[in-house]
Amino acid sequence: MLRRYLPILTWLPHYNRRLCGADLLAGLIVTVMVIPQSLAYAILAGLPAVVGLYASILPLLAYTLLGTSRTLAVGPVAIIALMTGAALSGVAPPGSPAYLEAALVLSLLSGAMLVVMGVLRMGFFANFLSHPVIGGFLAASGLLIAVSQLSHLLGIEAGGYDALTLLTSLATHLGGLHWPTLAVGAGTLAFLVAVRHFGKSLLRRLGLPGPAADLIARAGPVFAVVGTTALSAWLDLAEHGVAVVGAVPGGLPPLTMPPVEAGLWRQLLVPALLISVVGFVESISMAQMLAAKRRERISPNQELIGLGGANLAAAFSSGMPVTGGLSRTVINFESGARTPMAGLFAAIGIGLVTLAFTPWLHHLPVATLAATITVAILTLVDIPLIRQTWRYSRSDFSAMAVTMVLTLVEGVEAGIIAGVLLSIMLFLYRTSRPHSAVVGRIPGTEHFRSVARHDTETVSHLALLRIDESLYFANARYLEDTLYALVATRPELEHVVLICSAVNLIDASALESLDAINARLKDSKVTLHLAEVKGPVMDQLKKSTFLDDLAGRVFLSTYAAWTELSPRRD
Amino acid sequence: MLRRYLPILTWLPHYNRRLCGADLLAGLIVTVMVIPQSLAYAILAGLPAVVGLYASILPLLAYTLLGTSRTLAVGPVAIIALMTGAALSGVAPPGSPAYLEAALVLSLLSGAMLVVMGVLRMGFFANFLSHPVIGGFLAASGLLIAVSQLSHLLGIEAGGYDALTLLTSLATHLGGLHWPTLAVGAGTLAFLVAVRHFGKSLLRRLGLPGPAADLIARAGPVFAVVGTTALSAWLDLAEHGVAVVGAVPGGLPPLTMPPVEAGLWRQLLVPALLISVVGFVESISMAQMLAAKRRERISPNQELIGLGGANLAAAFSSGMPVTGGLSRTVINFESGARTPMAGLFAAIGIGLVTLAFTPWLHHLPVATLAATITVAILTLVDIPLIRQTWRYSRSDFSAMAVTMVLTLVEGVEAGIIAGVLLSIMLFLYRTSRPHSAVVGRIPGTEHFRSVARHDTETVSHLALLRIDESLYFANARYLEDTLYALVATRPELEHVVLICSAVNLIDASALESLDAINARLKDSKVTLHLAEVKGPVMDQLKKSTFLDDLAGRVFLSTYAAWTELSPRRD
Repeated sequence: MLRRYLPILTWLPHYNRRLCGADLLAGLIVTVMVIPQSLAYAILAGLPAVVGLYASILPLLAYTLLGTSRTLAVGPVAIIALMTGAALSGVAPPGSPAYLEAALVLSLLSGAMLVVMGVLRMGFFANFLSHPVIGGFLAASGLLIAVSQLSHLLGIEAGGYDALTLLTSLATHLGGLHWPTLAVGAGTLAFLVAVRHFGKSLLRRLGLPGPAADLIARAGPVFAVVGTTALSAWLDLAEHGVAVVGAVPGGLPPLTMPPVEAGLWRQLLVPALLISVVGFVESISMAQMLAAKRRERISPNQELIGLGGANLAAAFSSGMPVTGGLSRTVINFESGARTPMAGLFAAIGIGLVTLAFTPWLHHLPVATLAATITVAILTLVDIPLIRQTWRYSRSDFSAMAVTMVLTLVEGVEAGIIAGVLLSIMLFLYRTSRPHSAVVGRIPGTEHFRSVARHDTETVSHLALLRIDESLYFANARYLEDTLYALVATRPELEHVVLICSAVNLIDASALESLDAINARLKDSKVTLHLAEVKGPVMDQLKKSTFLDDLAGRVFLSTYAAWTELSPRRD
Repeated sequence: MLRRYLPILTWLPHYNRRLCGADLLAGLIVTVMVIPQSLAYAILAGLPAVVGLYASILPLLAYTLLGTSRTLAVGPVAIIALMTGAALSGVAPPGSPAYLEAALVLSLLSGAMLVVMGVLRMGFFANFLSHPVIGGFLAASGLLIAVSQLSHLLGIEAGGYDALTLLTSLATHLGGLHWPTLAVGAGTLAFLVAVRHFGKSLLRRLGLPGPAADLIARAGPVFAVVGTTALSAWLDLAEHGVAVVGAVPGGLPPLTMPPVEAGLWRQLLVPALLISVVGFVESISMAQMLAAKRRERISPNQELIGLGGANLAAAFSSGMPVTGGLSRTVINFESGARTPMAGLFAAIGIGLVTLAFTPWLHHLPVATLAATITVAILTLVDIPLIRQTWRYSRSDFSAMAVTMVLTLVEGVEAGIIAGVLLSIMLFLYRTSRPHSAVVGRIPGTEHFRSVARHDTETVSHLALLRIDESLYFANARYLEDTLYALVATRPELEHVVLICSAVNLIDASALESLDAINARLKDSKVTLHLAEVKGPVMDQLKKSTFLDDLAGRVFLSTYAAWTELSPRRD
């Protein structure tokens, strides 16, 4: 029991020096690598840069205790930062103390929801975010983030959390373009793109072994941060109007108490739910992928508790909503992390940074961070996925397209809610008009196939109808229509056999329809039979009076129905 | 084309004197019978009694032109009146001119929605009201209506559209109980219950033929109205404080123009939608049942247009929302109506009543109408249906119970919305955790059955897994979990065959999961195969690259997979 809720107990007793060495190295690398992105994502959320560091200390500790993934790295991530900013800008002016407090409330609510969902074993909830909806949402969010960073790259004032606001705001302020900022931003961007595309092969050609080349290439943002900070300090760019991070308070994250205000909590309830679900989906997909690579297992419900704990820790330590991040997890995994202890080491490392090294961040240009985000985020726009979804299914594609368009135009919340609702509605619509086929016997076999697709043997007084869907309220009336239409067009009909091989459920509405069909066919001197009813469905039918009232029989196989009913009895 | 939208053209050319005679008689009987209920339902909706008559004239004419059911009788009905009252009391004080105008807007919106749904062929929309939800809603509404009529029966002031408001209002005003009113109300109630239970058999024993006895027994409310009106006029009960209908303006319904006010329209949008859908469901179920009895066909989408036309007519002729009513339709059918012309005759009859006979209604006690409603409405509380649903399925029952409780506590709108959402969620939850079975061969046959339920033949390096559900976003991850768990527990496994006989759909999310499963099993040296993939599903899979990447094969039958894969190859 204790082990289930504290997964650390499953691995800590077996912890040894070899594992510790690997985790220590990974923790060190992660510390260095995630500083730029932690700062950048806090700024993306409209928060002071240092909040990103604070959110990378205690939350990591909480996940180390509670999480089941061995290598997931928790912290601020781009999408969640975007959603946080969109939610907070609706309740308080950016930069105000109320804005900071709202961030704590958002972490608290989202943490509490995750823990509750985990305890109630509601991990399945996340399944309703279909892949096309997630894909569309990520692509649109990536575009939104990229556009939002343009203002930092151009050195102009602009803001907003939907495409229209962002673009008009950019356009109206374009006159204020600041050339030195643009130079830093564009230079960093060019450097990062170059490192990403050519860094690894170049380093290898210089004789570095593969993994090292890989790691150094990934450290591009770190070099950019160090380089531009040094440049900025040397030329005193802040004096020339280039926005820099500025004074960052030193010391460990101050402990905080999220304010208890009913109105504020109510306003942040839906955003917190969406942040929880989106964060969980992003995190769990990655955790499952990595667990599979090392043949480990993760528990989705315990993951909810782990991420919930991390967010609660953020709420009480001046943080912001966090989740398992793609890039930091990949760095952690590829740096050789073996257990969640690597997360603890990274937390200690970032703690030391906030204690001692924050003065060094003073001259860091904001444009450098914007360039870092832009390069990282554009990988979210997965064009092949969009093309592939279009080819595979127009229905899935329409859910994806609506999510994308609404995310861009109306913002992240509207986009994701519309996407989920639309994909559910499309599924219900499809199941409400099930495919059905009148089947006949493939001559000389016991196989029955659609008379429309195959050469089959049929007799005029017997109709075999296969329904390819569970029977439930949304298609109960459709079933009635289908059967009455069949009977109306074939006056010589005496028997109708409903083949239920694809019927996984018959709910109360469908049962009433079957009752009505049975009675009405009996009035028209046609007998209704069933065939190939599955065990669980049959068990349930036995709880009703339907089987007693059924005019015909329940056959084990279509062939049994055929041998019994096809000879005409005169 | 014209015939599709004007069904009158299909039957009017064949109209003859015999049909006309039958329709004329039915129209006459309906005229007499529906006057009490038309008045009563208008009062139930908080409107002047005469509005119920107005709503039984032009709307009937519209349905005669546009409807496809031969015997459906349109007019004010109890449930719709309750919903109308609940909606209107939220936007204007009962009795005010604004309240009357809002009723017109509600008819207009609901008529327009019905017509639009009909033209867009969206009749399937009504299918999402599952039978348990309808059953629960009707039962709760019946109770609400019965309680709301208590105040009229007791002669006290009380109102409200949810159980709590009604009961507290009744309790606080109980001191004002008016004995003469109670005497009229209780007397009428006793008379109506007696007629309903013993009238028919008594009349038969007196020598009347069955149908005539039936009709006279059904005319109980008419006798009650005539009797208590005469009594009230004779004793001048109004002088003694008994509430009577009072002065009813004579003349044909005044033509009206619903006010165009954006705010009001927005407030009435959701109520109008619910009234449309509930009215349509009530009406279409009855129309289908009666059509089946006479082997006629009705068109659900044209019915939407017919009911929509009737509501539009109500909006422009001082009416209220209408739909096909249970009791008036049964009276019409059993009085021998053959075509919608009977509706036209009833409209003319009720028109004559409003022209010439409204003074006669002056002394009609409101308590009589309340007794009429109470007796009619309690049949909606269908206890056997509730018991039967409980036995058949706890999941369906929970949707029913939530609908009932919320309708009682929060009112009709909250109840029906919660019921629909819950039944959709329960269905999605069920499909998100599909039943699956590892199957083995029944020795000596080509049949494969669950190894847990049957004695089967299996081999350790081959797993045959049958998934009993369409594969889509809600269960894609569950599928992955199921397969990985299977592989994790059987290290000697070399082949996994996914039997898709019950898979009617594979959406883009499930396709991605299958891709991931295929790749991950390949990594673990296990080959994934499919079997019994249906034609339409296979067609769709061919649009993706999945079949090219699939490590194993697609077998036509499970048996083919077995013969190919079960011999161990060393």
